[in-house]
Amino acid sequence: MTKATIITIGDELLIGQTIDTNSAWMATELNKIGVHIHKRVAVGDNWKDIWSALEKESLDANLVLITGGLGPTSDDITKPLLCSYFGSQLTVNEEARDNVIDIFTKKLNRPLLERNLKQAEVPDNCTVIQNTRGTAPGMWFEKEGVVYVSMPGVPHEMKGMMDLYVLPRIQEIFDLKPIRHKTLLTAGIGESFLAEKLTGFEAQLPESVKMAYLPNYGMVRIRLSSIDAEAPIDEQFELLKGMVSEHMVIDRDLSIQESVAEKLLESNKTISVAESCTGGYISHLFTSIPGSSRFFMGSVIAYDNAVKKKLLDVSEETLNTHGAVSMETVRQMAKGVREKTGTDLALATSGIMGPGGGTENKPVGTVFVAIASQEKIESTSFHFRFDRKRNIELTAAHALDFLRKNMG
Amino acid sequence: MTKATIITIGDELLIGQTIDTNSAWMATELNKIGVHIHKRVAVGDNWKDIWSALEKESLDANLVLITGGLGPTSDDITKPLLCSYFGSQLTVNEEARDNVIDIFTKKLNRPLLERNLKQAEVPDNCTVIQNTRGTAPGMWFEKEGVVYVSMPGVPHEMKGMMDLYVLPRIQEIFDLKPIRHKTLLTAGIGESFLAEKLTGFEAQLPESVKMAYLPNYGMVRIRLSSIDAEAPIDEQFELLKGMVSEHMVIDRDLSIQESVAEKLLESNKTISVAESCTGGYISHLFTSIPGSSRFFMGSVIAYDNAVKKKLLDVSEETLNTHGAVSMETVRQMAKGVREKTGTDLALATSGIMGPGGGTENKPVGTVFVAIASQEKIESTSFHFRFDRKRNIELTAAHALDFLRKNMG
Repeated sequence: MTKATIITIGDELLIGQTIDTNSAWMATELNKIGVHIHKRVAVGDNWKDIWSALEKESLDANLVLITGGLGPTSDDITKPLLCSYFGSQLTVNEEARDNVIDIFTKKLNRPLLERNLKQAEVPDNCTVIQNTRGTAPGMWFEKEGVVYVSMPGVPHEMKGMMDLYVLPRIQEIFDLKPIRHKTLLTAGIGESFLAEKLTGFEAQLPESVKMAYLPNYGMVRIRLSSIDAEAPIDEQFELLKGMVSEHMVIDRDLSIQESVAEKLLESNKTISVAESCTGGYISHLFTSIPGSSRFFMGSVIAYDNAVKKKLLDVSEETLNTHGAVSMETVRQMAKGVREKTGTDLALATSGIMGPGGGTENKPVGTVFVAIASQEKIESTSFHFRFDRKRNIELTAAHALDFLRKNMG
Repeated sequence: MTKATIITIGDELLIGQTIDTNSAWMATELNKIGVHIHKRVAVGDNWKDIWSALEKESLDANLVLITGGLGPTSDDITKPLLCSYFGSQLTVNEEARDNVIDIFTKKLNRPLLERNLKQAEVPDNCTVIQNTRGTAPGMWFEKEGVVYVSMPGVPHEMKGMMDLYVLPRIQEIFDLKPIRHKTLLTAGIGESFLAEKLTGFEAQLPESVKMAYLPNYGMVRIRLSSIDAEAPIDEQFELLKGMVSEHMVIDRDLSIQESVAEKLLESNKTISVAESCTGGYISHLFTSIPGSSRFFMGSVIAYDNAVKKKLLDVSEETLNTHGAVSMETVRQMAKGVREKTGTDLALATSGIMGPGGGTENKPVGTVFVAIASQEKIESTSFHFRFDRKRNIELTAAHALDFLRKNMG
């Protein structure tokens, strides 16, 4: 069985200045082709720690994927270390050298520095992985039955190498059994209640099918997995769907915004958003989806009351009587943005995200959401009790779920 | 010297369904009080892997921080494992039990399940860390000179425990030397050029001061660090500032949006945004800052041309002659949103983020940015060559940097 470890290198990962998104992406892609990641390790730009991680992890894994530490500056020590670890000499790789020259003269229009050319030097006993998106080449080593792959830490460079070379090569040389996952998304029910509901289901699951709960922003995804091609995962998934039907958002591993987008496209409806407390986050979630211009027309981020009045026609009286954070205001916002943009549907949010701005009647976390269509306006309220960032994320997720249920 | 390792537990971290943000937050907070994280490890919900990580990491560290695997469902095995690892018996902790009951009856208004009550059981040889934000208590163990702290994986619950108990207790029992960091942000210059510029500076740095480059979205942060209280870090930082002055955005560890926000507040100016290609992301960056309502008034996300015309007064003729992605359009967008919202300044973006929508003349990654004030409109263009997500992030960062330079 293929057992893989991911080692990420860089001081910035240990002092908290960078969140490691590479590992999650790599794990997802490796999982798809049947490689099981059993461990992830992050170490600093420190010779002893990197060396020790290589030694230890190669005892437990037959595939060690390494990212980071290949930059042109002196804190990047991964390449000389690998050279020493595998007993090799640095030598110039012509193709990598041409690539560096090409990038500097044609793409960046910058003078080429000696330290940039040095990026084309590689250990003489590795297979060089060319970098189509940057200057540092990747390296593929094999030693005592273990494969080591070193790639840059810049996410889009690493992803290019993985897609073009590393993933296909892994599939070639390892005997892989694809892991199958089936995931559904639920909303409006907590993890422990789901678990209670599914106690019987879980007890009857065959050995070959594993179940996991993945809670996120007030929603819980439930995943069934199997490495056994014969496992009855489809049948079990149908059973599961039946058991959680009233809370199920969608029976695939889609985000709530992707699931709303799909429904909008299917019903050929357009949407606009009027955001106060979410401040552009819902629009950002929609517009992060490729092709979103087919259903998303635009938004008004009405942070200040003057903007609510001028661009959304919220009445002065409503703002004075009920306040900006109220059911009445959010309903007018939804109506206003729909009329101004001419969309079929409109979603609006108003609330207090914190840390300041709370009152006794409307504490931090108070949120109003409305949905307007040609026929009617639906509205609801929520109360969250977290920090600003999480309150914004939760408001967006719950507003999108409310939209999903009320889009007709 | 205190050496700490962070162990995160959960299958979701190994199959890529969750990005680990806990470790980065913990590392930042621990660093502030002088705890050096030398390694981070992520393992799945697997008895053997968790046990082995505990054994191995405790050889190299005297502080082992563990998050995850304490939930109420059967895939959460951390608590029984710790019980066995430290040779203890599970026993009900009264305070934790009262907390669980309190949360279910007063806050959630949900029936209390047996599996929720089980969360109040803890090993009898640990110090219990009460959870003020959830049901699973944390656990503090000491064994053979090593401290082990187990906390829930839910970020806000973990953060509550760290702030209220774990960080103060660590400061009490370890002899810590605070690590000092001084960070500045540069824009418009690549990492290798900075390194070339700073070769002499780096060579003269005393042993006690370390330098690191942290590139992110076309900007590079440079950080000086020292654990020696006597190290001349302030003097070296002044030297550094002098050397990079023409590229320096700000001489603190602030993001570009925080630095723009600070300048707006200092000059008592308000801003609005007209976003096409960034689709709400710039507004989201502004409104993620607490108190942003003091300078940010609102935005129009004009994805569709009809919205550009109706809400931003972009002329039909301009759209027909030059297209939505053009210098002319983005200038009218900036002017339009400033007039509609009555702000001092306005920022506008229009571009093609991909994967579709590119043409020969305007390939994917083409971006136009404009800034309008009472007196004038400034505009510029960029070309990025990455994927949709990164193109949006890069556009936002460069638009904010263009704003910073042109806000008068």
